Formats: sequence, structure tokens, C-alpha cells
Amino acid sequence: MDAEFVVPGFDAAGIVAGIKKSGAPDLTLIVSRIPCRAAAAFTKNAFPAAPVQYDRRLLSLNPTAIHGVVINSGCANACTGVPGDANARLMAEAVERALGANDNSVFVMSTGVIGVQLPMDKLTQGIPQAVDQLRPDGWADAAQAIMTTDTRPKLVTRSAEIDGQTVRLTGIAKGAGMIHPDMATMLSCIATDAAISQPLLQQALSAAVERSYNCISIDGDTSTNDTVLLLANGLAGNPEITSTGPAYDAFLAVLTEIATELAQAIVRDGEGVTKFVTIHVHGAKSAEEAHRAANTIATSPLVKTAFFGNDANWGRILAAVGRAGITVEPARCALFITGGASAADRGPELQLVAGGTPLPYAESEAAARFAQPELDVRVDLGLGDGEATVWTCDLSHDYVSINGDYRS
Amino acid sequence: MDAEFVVPGFDAAGIVAGIKKSGAPDLTLIVSRIPCRAAAAFTKNAFPAAPVQYDRRLLSLNPTAIHGVVINSGCANACTGVPGDANARLMAEAVERALGANDNSVFVMSTGVIGVQLPMDKLTQGIPQAVDQLRPDGWADAAQAIMTTDTRPKLVTRSAEIDGQTVRLTGIAKGAGMIHPDMATMLSCIATDAAISQPLLQQALSAAVERSYNCISIDGDTSTNDTVLLLANGLAGNPEITSTGPAYDAFLAVLTEIATELAQAIVRDGEGVTKFVTIHVHGAKSAEEAHRAANTIATSPLVKTAFFGNDANWGRILAAVGRAGITVEPARCALFITGGASAADRGPELQLVAGGTPLPYAESEAAARFAQPELDVRVDLGLGDGEATVWTCDLSHDYVSINGDYRS
Repeated sequence: MDAEFVVPGFDAAGIVAGIKKSGAPDLTLIVSRIPCRAAAAFTKNAFPAAPVQYDRRLLSLNPTAIHGVVINSGCANACTGVPGDANARLMAEAVERALGANDNSVFVMSTGVIGVQLPMDKLTQGIPQAVDQLRPDGWADAAQAIMTTDTRPKLVTRSAEIDGQTVRLTGIAKGAGMIHPDMATMLSCIATDAAISQPLLQQALSAAVERSYNCISIDGDTSTNDTVLLLANGLAGNPEITSTGPAYDAFLAVLTEIATELAQAIVRDGEGVTKFVTIHVHGAKSAEEAHRAANTIATSPLVKTAFFGNDANWGRILAAVGRAGITVEPARCALFITGGASAADRGPELQLVAGGTPLPYAESEAAARFAQPELDVRVDLGLGDGEATVWTCDLSHDYVSINGDYRS
Repeated sequence: MDAEFVVPGFDAAGIVAGIKKSGAPDLTLIVSRIPCRAAAAFTKNAFPAAPVQYDRRLLSLNPTAIHGVVINSGCANACTGVPGDANARLMAEAVERALGANDNSVFVMSTGVIGVQLPMDKLTQGIPQAVDQLRPDGWADAAQAIMTTDTRPKLVTRSAEIDGQTVRLTGIAKGAGMIHPDMATMLSCIATDAAISQPLLQQALSAAVERSYNCISIDGDTSTNDTVLLLANGLAGNPEITSTGPAYDAFLAVLTEIATELAQAIVRDGEGVTKFVTIHVHGAKSAEEAHRAANTIATSPLVKTAFFGNDANWGRILAAVGRAGITVEPARCALFITGGASAADRGPELQLVAGGTPLPYAESEAAARFAQPELDVRVDLGLGDGEATVWTCDLSHDYVSINGDYRS
């Protein structure tokens, strides 16, 4: 059944290298048989982990002849000083040697406990084993081995017709943002056989990340290790995309689609999450102000505990908008909610607020929507054309338990 | 015993007006027998409640001949549109009439449920009763009647010698920030007999608020109703403070002291709070950057759940600093913790991080400090002279319960 995830020219593997005490898979390889182009988006945290620093340098040094990426879970190689930098490099070099690939052709990602050095003996033993396991349908193993506290692997595939050729994209991801304890790392890697120039590959990734990974908000925490990597080997045979236009737009659309599904999967699998919430703000003075309002709602613990408690507490939502630091005219604000069992199954929308004051809605109708596993909150600021969507979750008892007790 | 709180020329009262369903006291008056000077600090939320809008206008209209303030709990008069504005005015006028005071001489504060109109019949009946109860030692009743979900009243008094005269200050406060459900209102009123010009009274209040109420952070939520009011009637007989200098400095010092004790009392009484945490950041490029770092640590759910779980998870603290948007050089960062049973009883400091990497400290030593009810976290950024202190609390199961279930 893994055949559906195959991207021509790419092999994947996930094995047990013994880094995790649990004995679960913890070493992932994704490799292109021919040199491929790479694009990446990295954490903006001022304490970037060693692998992030290594990858930033590699991307500027060699963005066009990459062979793949090695990812370990169980140890984040963050806050590890000079030895950590050396270990990130040694990890990449071990893969380059095992593949018989050129120097400076392999990216590195790490996730797990911080402040601890990588167990290099286990990695140097595990890497040749992982290379042996590489196969076109190894994606499920790859998705499994990057998990830390995720409850299920996140693996998505998509295809699109571009200039008459079928282009394939397959991606994996692991948990993000506030959901995850200990540095809360979000890692993702997407491979595609599309033919596209490296500058446009990076442009497309940056645009897609802005509309997917950067639109999920668990609690505003960004990790030291967050990385999204996109590899493109060109084997689809489409005429190389070298400028913006219909082909680029088609690629961007499908890339945004797969990135959005992976990002949403991260929220849905958040620790302690009982509810998937879509916050849509429109009518703002600008898209940036809309995003700031949506993000402030999505990160407010008062709002998130109300989501958990099935409490249609619209006052907390308006108060969050009010402190977002954006232009607001209370008398123009409207607030609507919709709930449903799934993304495809939404009930009718209910307006709670008009002109900044509450409407005489039935509390039971509002509570019924808040009780659904999927909830949409729509805020109309009534001022301009700016809009933004953020996906988030509730704040539950389990979240406190998991994050309070993690290391004990 | 209430005699210690008396401020010459001020009377206070707190009664049951029937606004709260519980039958608890819900109407407070603080009145000066002679016209007094007023200064205030208001919420920056873009949805200010009707009483906040009323008070802003009153302060600009008449900052020097004020008679007092009326405060109700149980209904916030927020998001109530035009009728809400009228009701705030009617509430002030009812007090002015009952006192026989001039128009535009009484401030209004409200806290409680939002989106609901004030029960004006109960207020107009209650206000004359409250006026009847006014007495110099009525402060404990006043502090009681402004409570919503606070578990105990917050009432503090201080005195200072200024130019050979004893100046007295007494203040009350109720819960703030993220701690409290439904709009999380922070209200405070301080009365003093100091003689000080109105511009300097406002200058002193703004400076004191910056170093007290603005340094408590529960979760970054600011309410629609937050108000701090300072009334000064000049009866202490000190030479009127009309310029900065030693007398102003002495007044500012005692005002900052009482404001800090009230602000810290709010954090200590937070819902579900098991720990009082002091975050001190120094070595930043500027005081503003230090405050932003301290605030980011104090509002991170990952950090706050670690406080709750007695988990010395320094990685989360550094990661919060790293996303604060300030200048950071990881190799210069140091992190220290101290714990104790009370503010006066701190154990020895333990350094966890030097040069951005963990020291080989004993986990049991760190956990013992995190297990104390009072915890100090000190971050040295090693870059400059900027420093800031923020007081905060942990994020517990009870917090989720209280805020998730509040209206159900």
C-alpha cells in the first residue's frame, strides 16, 4: 500500500538506531538517486540548534546538488555548543560516505531532548543500516522514525498535472509548536520529482510555508530546531519551471495543499487536543493585521480553555482581538461560529456578535457548536480587505499533564 | 483592627446590592470628604468597557476636584453598546446625588460578566445604602465587595515621612490578567492624603504602574476593564509636591511599594496557582528588550507547565528567550534558579546554563528548587545593562478546570 507514496528517484528508510530509550525507530533517511535541488525554511529562534546552523550554511553553499537528508529523533542536538556543531557535520558526512555521495550534499535534522550530545557511536552504526534499507516505498518507515511524542505518523502525498506531465509530491512531518514538550520541534520534509529552478523552488516553499506551517499556532512557542525541507529532482519530465506563470502557479498550489495537510495533521495530533479550531479573521486593515488578530485569538489561554470547556465565551475572543495591537472599531465587529464532526461536515453558521455587542442567540445553539470536534470562528472587523486563517486547538487537562510531567 | 487602614479624609464601604447571584457583597464606594486630585491608568484593550470610556473622559474633564469612585462587581458593563455608556453615567450620577457632590466628580468601575447590561434598579437602590455605610475604617468591606473569583481580599496600607509629615496610602485590588475567567479584569484603587499637584500625581502613578501592575503577567491577556485609580486629598499637610525632587521621590517610592504589593497579591491569588515565580532578566541590550524576554518566559505555556510540574526544564526557558525577538548571543547566556518557602526565605542560587550550554548540575538539586512555592529565575544575556523583573505563576490543572468550566 506504500506504493502510492513513491516519488520517482527518491528512496526513504526509517530504522531503530538505539537513540531512543524506548527502542522505537529513530533514524530516517530520504535520498534522491540523482542530485536534486533544495529549498528550506528554518526556525527564527535566536538559539538555533546545531543541525539548523549546519543546514543554513549548506543551503547557501550548495542549493542545487543535494543527495538527501538524515533525521534522528530522541536527541535534538540543541544547546550543545562546539561539540554539537561538529556532531551535526559528522552525521552528514557519515551519510555522504555510506551513499558514496559528494561532500556537502546531505542535510541534517534532529529532534528530541536538548542539552545532550548526540550518541555518535549509535549514529555511525545506524547510518549504514539505514542506507541498506532505502527503498522507493520506505516513506511510512521514514514518517514513523521522526516521531517523538506524536501519536501517529504524518505522511501525505499529492500529484498535479503540470504542462501535461504528472508531478508527484510526498511529505512527512512531526509535531510542532506548543503541542510538544521539550523544545516542541516541528520538522517536515517534502520530496518532489518536479523540474523547477532552485530560486523558484525556494520562492514556492517560502510562499507555501507562509500559508501552512506558519498558520498553525498551538501556543506561540517556536522551537530551536524547526525546519521544513523541500527536495526536487526533476524526474517528472515537465519543462523546467524557470519563471512565474501558470506552471509555477500549479506547482505552488499543490505544494501549498500538501504543506497545509501536513501542518493541520500536526495540530490534530497535538498532545491533549480534543478540538481542531479554524480562526478566520477578515475585514482587517491589512493581511498582516488580520494574521495578528487570528494569532492572538489562537494563542490566548483564556480562549483555548473555553474551547476545551465547550463554552461559547465570545467575550474572551473579542478581548483577544482588542489586545492584538491592530486597528479595531468595536462598533463594526461581528463574530460567527460553526461546528461540525469533520472538515467536510459543518453545520449552519451562528452569529454571536454584531456591532461589537452580543445578539440574543440561544446559548444552547452556541454550546452545541462549541461541543463539536471541529470548530470555526469567524471575526469580521468591518474595516478593510485584510484576511487570514490560523489553525489551532484547545488547551486541555492532558496538555498540562503531559507538559508538566514530561521529564519526571 | 481596620483602623490601621484609615487615610484621613477618606471613607469606604462595601455592601450587598444584589448584582451577584451568590448574594456576596458587590458594591464598593471610596469617597473623599473634600475634593481630591485623581490620576489613573487604563487598559490598552481596543474594546474598552463603558466605565473605562467614562473615566477617561472624566479624568480629562476634571482631574482636580473628584469626590470618589463607585465600583460594582458581578457585571462588567463591557460590550454593552450605547445603553452601557448611559448606565455608566447614571451610576456615577446616582452617587453624586446621594453624596450631594458636584456633577462630574465620581469615577466608575465595573467587573464581572460581559455583554450584559447593568441591573440599574439594584444599583440605584444600593447606592444610597452604600453611602450610609461610608466610614473611615470601611476598607476591608470595600476590598471584599470588589472581588469576583478572588479567594481573598487584597488590601494594603503604607506610610512614609515626607517633609516631616506622615503620608498614608491605602489600596485595594482585585484579580487580573489571565488568572481570572471572563474578561480577567484587574481593578485597583489607592487613596492617599499626600499633598501633590495633579500632574505629578499622574506622573508618579504612571511610573509606579510601569514597575508593578505592568510587571505581573499571568498569560498576556489584558481585559476590557483594567483600571488603576489614585486619589489624593492633601490632608497630610506636607508642603504640596509641585516638582520632582526628594519629596516626589519619597512619594513615588512608597506608591511603587504599595502598588507592587497589590500586584503581587493578585498573582499569588491566581486561579489554580501553586507557585509564585519571579523572572529577572539582565544583561540585555536595553530595559525594553529585557522586559520583552522576561514577559515571553512568563507567558510561555511550556515554561508555565514545567513550573507546575516541578521540572527544571531550562531548555524551554532559553527557547522562550530565543523567540522574544530581542538581541541574543547564545554563547553569552547564563541561567540561574533559586527557590524558597517565602519571599524572605530563599535557598542558594544554582546555575543551570553557562555560555548557552548546560552545566553538569545535579538534577535533584534543580528539582528541589523548582518544588518550592516561590521560585526565582535569573537570565543573564551578557550583552548590556538592560534589566527587568516580571512576576508570574504556573499553569495548573485547576487553571484549566476553572477557565474551561466557568460558565457551565
